[in-house]
Amino acid sequence: MSTPQFGRARSAEAKRAREDAILAAASRLALEHGVREVTVTAIADEVGMHKSAMLRYFETREEIFLRLAAGGWRDWAAEVRDRLGALPACADAAAPQWPHAARSIAGVLAQSLTARPLFCDLLAHTPLNLERNVSHDAVRTFKLRAIAEVAETGAAIAAVTPLAAGQARSVVTTATAMAGALWQMAAPGTGLRAFYETDPELAHSVVEVEPRLTDILTALLTGYAAQPHSGGDA
Amino acid sequence: MSTPQFGRARSAEAKRAREDAILAAASRLALEHGVREVTVTAIADEVGMHKSAMLRYFETREEIFLRLAAGGWRDWAAEVRDRLGALPACADAAAPQWPHAARSIAGVLAQSLTARPLFCDLLAHTPLNLERNVSHDAVRTFKLRAIAEVAETGAAIAAVTPLAAGQARSVVTTATAMAGALWQMAAPGTGLRAFYETDPELAHSVVEVEPRLTDILTALLTGYAAQPHSGGDA
Repeated sequence: MSTPQFGRARSAEAKRAREDAILAAASRLALEHGVREVTVTAIADEVGMHKSAMLRYFETREEIFLRLAAGGWRDWAAEVRDRLGALPACADAAAPQWPHAARSIAGVLAQSLTARPLFCDLLAHTPLNLERNVSHDAVRTFKLRAIAEVAETGAAIAAVTPLAAGQARSVVTTATAMAGALWQMAAPGTGLRAFYETDPELAHSVVEVEPRLTDILTALLTGYAAQPHSGGDA
Repeated sequence: MSTPQFGRARSAEAKRAREDAILAAASRLALEHGVREVTVTAIADEVGMHKSAMLRYFETREEIFLRLAAGGWRDWAAEVRDRLGALPACADAAAPQWPHAARSIAGVLAQSLTARPLFCDLLAHTPLNLERNVSHDAVRTFKLRAIAEVAETGAAIAAVTPLAAGQARSVVTTATAMAGALWQMAAPGTGLRAFYETDPELAHSVVEVEPRLTDILTALLTGYAAQPHSGGDA
């Protein structure tokens, strides 16, 4: 608990600065404790505002985390597009370099996701909880952002692979959904993970997210590339 | 609220009958309202017990739903193994019937999952919430069941495809994790789904779980079959 640092926001700029401070505080707490453990009260304490004052900026904790998820999509997708743009294009599934290229692209997706623990945590919470306790306007803004990032990232994958646009979008959806699911299964840094690791019958099935995700996405890219271009779904 | 129907359980059989009644009540409520909306109090009301009496059988709502998830795994995996056992084996990825076989197997996995709405709902909640609010013993019992069903179902897939055992287990993990994620994104029967369908900019990206999942799993099976057998991860 700290002393409130802010008076009333007097301008759009001051309002924006407060929103950023709230988002940064929620981000710090979620990284330390996991999204599911962070309450509105804890965020208000961390940012140094009264809870009622903070709720003038965001209606619910879910709205705060949905904003962080939108930022996560923007940031992750920008890095993926940068890194894919630096790879040589391979538009022919029969080319000798395609298996290596497929593994490189899968690696870029898996590494960039697992390098973002908060985004991985948010990806699982978004459809399950975050979209369910906010206004339709807030859901709509988030969905349009996620749809746009999936489309642009899919286009970047299609540009360097034999995949059709719909197939490439499906790779993006699968990469992000599986990153969310595998992250929760792996439960890194939790007491549950420590329990898995010390139990002889569970230890061998502990999930390592990055190699698992790379393996799945390599197979998915390979399989789509082997199909006629009518495949894939948007 | 209804009148308690049960006195004190006097035998193992009576205890088992009560547990079954609690699980059936939780199952009915979760199918109607979604897992996330169902409270311990609602389950106690539905089964006609006092809440304090019910908590002698299950410590938390998460323990009830984790038991339902274990039953869901057993039931789903048994159907998949039956249906895969009836398919002709195709152990050669170069065989002309392999593309059709891959799509059939993907279809069996996707259909059997989407035919089980409660299991799909539970699959997303399990690693995110259900394993986090129960005793380590309860988690352990559930995990061992899920690991065994993944292994046996993977073996059944490997028996009728060119896939190695580890690759086939990865197909099972991906099928169930993606069913959980896509189900939440699709949000069938909710106000959120109705909102998506009526918004012009969101309507075209509404998720249809079964065809999406069939498409992804077909590509995954195809991609694993095209790799050397060293691939795949358990």
